[in-house]
Amino acid sequence: MSQFLNPRYASLEAYTPGEQPRDKRYIKLNTNESPYPPAPEVVAAMDAAQVEDLRLYSDPTGKALREKIGGLYGLQWDNVILTNGSDDILNFAFMAFSGDGAAFPDITYGFYSVFAQLHGIDTQVIPLKEDFTLDYRDYCGLNKMIVIANPNAPTGLAIPLEQIRAILETNPGHVVVIDEAYVDFGGESAAALLGQYDNLLVTQTFSKSRSMAGARLGFGMASKAIIEDLEKLRYSTNPYNINRLTMLLGEKTVDNNGYYMENCRRIADTRAYTQKALESLGFTVLPGLGNFLFAQSPDISGEALYLALKDRGVLVRHFTNPRICNYNRITIGTRQEMEEFIRTVREIKEGTL
Amino acid sequence: MSQFLNPRYASLEAYTPGEQPRDKRYIKLNTNESPYPPAPEVVAAMDAAQVEDLRLYSDPTGKALREKIGGLYGLQWDNVILTNGSDDILNFAFMAFSGDGAAFPDITYGFYSVFAQLHGIDTQVIPLKEDFTLDYRDYCGLNKMIVIANPNAPTGLAIPLEQIRAILETNPGHVVVIDEAYVDFGGESAAALLGQYDNLLVTQTFSKSRSMAGARLGFGMASKAIIEDLEKLRYSTNPYNINRLTMLLGEKTVDNNGYYMENCRRIADTRAYTQKALESLGFTVLPGLGNFLFAQSPDISGEALYLALKDRGVLVRHFTNPRICNYNRITIGTRQEMEEFIRTVREIKEGTL
Repeated sequence: MSQFLNPRYASLEAYTPGEQPRDKRYIKLNTNESPYPPAPEVVAAMDAAQVEDLRLYSDPTGKALREKIGGLYGLQWDNVILTNGSDDILNFAFMAFSGDGAAFPDITYGFYSVFAQLHGIDTQVIPLKEDFTLDYRDYCGLNKMIVIANPNAPTGLAIPLEQIRAILETNPGHVVVIDEAYVDFGGESAAALLGQYDNLLVTQTFSKSRSMAGARLGFGMASKAIIEDLEKLRYSTNPYNINRLTMLLGEKTVDNNGYYMENCRRIADTRAYTQKALESLGFTVLPGLGNFLFAQSPDISGEALYLALKDRGVLVRHFTNPRICNYNRITIGTRQEMEEFIRTVREIKEGTL
Repeated sequence: MSQFLNPRYASLEAYTPGEQPRDKRYIKLNTNESPYPPAPEVVAAMDAAQVEDLRLYSDPTGKALREKIGGLYGLQWDNVILTNGSDDILNFAFMAFSGDGAAFPDITYGFYSVFAQLHGIDTQVIPLKEDFTLDYRDYCGLNKMIVIANPNAPTGLAIPLEQIRAILETNPGHVVVIDEAYVDFGGESAAALLGQYDNLLVTQTFSKSRSMAGARLGFGMASKAIIEDLEKLRYSTNPYNINRLTMLLGEKTVDNNGYYMENCRRIADTRAYTQKALESLGFTVLPGLGNFLFAQSPDISGEALYLALKDRGVLVRHFTNPRICNYNRITIGTRQEMEEFIRTVREIKEGTL
């Protein structure tokens, strides 16, 4: 730390992204990336002329892409905001709407508490139940901003839209953010409720189901008034937040939505295979709906399994939070990768017993 | 505005980027983009495999590119931070280092006052002298964060390193930010002073001299302690702030530095031609060192000239601030574009007189 840093950030603890080791080639099941590349039409959209045009700024309004995304959900372009990954939209939401504080679960995406700390927000952290399910009644009538990942991470568990509706209705004066980073793998989008609730903000990302983690594209969907507020913050920090190539590839991605939805179905199938195989090895596996599973074994600690897998060239995500330190979050790769993963787990278990 | 917005942002006035009209093809001299495309080696670096790899996150440390940028200035990789354009690094700097307030000129990059408003920072706005030069003595011993664009925008005027040295030495407890977005077109980089002053932060961008406005890549250079503070904010907002393609193209750009420095020389030559031609048409032109000129005519108001040019397919940047509303900021394009610009100005003047 320098002597110059504003003391309000002295104790800030930044987010820790999943490790990206470069010492060898891993089967990478630790950061919830898609195992499938972008659609061929997306890859074909890139040519020398696009790179040459990088001398020019991108369109700060992003209108063409916002229209296309809106089209997926029956919304207008000004019901949509584009951000540099969905962390960016979540950051804006915490800035804009948590004047009365923010509430979110104890076990969820780790960045929520970082944003709250960063902006000095009063935070109510609500424990999930013993089985990691979320009791929606804990969020009714809180009168502060509420942030719920649905499906949740790292558990993968989802709540039905009827429960989200109850949370929206009992907090009419505050924004309810539904973070749908993983919705395409089996959840149900709250975007269907947007016409009915002016306090709903739905966030999504191209990083998971749309195979564009490296392109950095997230978005939010809400009433025009909420989008206008978020746009004001975007224009007050970084009006050109989306680069030209990402904007172009994002448009082509939406044009080829069917390819990505088919990939999601394949990943859901591979998830079912992986869950069954882990259970047959004695694991407890939460019934997750994301592109990952959250699992623990009675025979080996979460950390020991994580380290043994890493040693054998397979990366999964281990968290040190005591409530979940016996679990690992396992991204669903290709069928072949998951068969290799299961073989490796079996090998480790046999060596341990 | 929604009913949910935190009242602290109610009166926030966002930055207004240069217009990007799409109604016809303009000679675009309004947003200080480079008229030259990225180097052929940069264009050639893009292929299908790079687009396919977008399914994976970028390296959040950005170490390879930070090492290359550091190499340009004899710095280590951890003296460099990468950001999503240089607005991003300026935003972090305002957050991190202006606990005691911030000072900057009245006529300068319009985003400084937006950042100050956004973060609720006490601001001392210091008028430039009548001739738009900056008196460095106004910034000595202020004991708050100081931000100086050098060369300044939209004037293009620069101050020598000796004056920056005096500002650094008389504000030892506070960070002095030197925003060098335009330094490559004729200025002298304060990066040369980094070894001597631990309170210096130099910011630059790939948007102007490096023909990558649309790729969004900025960077800061400072002591390791200052970079560590800024990295903490980066990891608390958006650890994957640079997309994979920009990271790759950025590396290739630094590898081909000679191409870009040659373009800067061409732009400086075209700037000299344009300045002379404007002066021969009776304009007052500030002796600017950026890739733009700031000029006014005794015969036609700044706004009238801007509108007449736009009407004839030439975009320049006009500001409504009363102190400079009679000027226009004219980006230096290719020699051919500037000849066309001068022809158009002459035509307008002849029609006016």
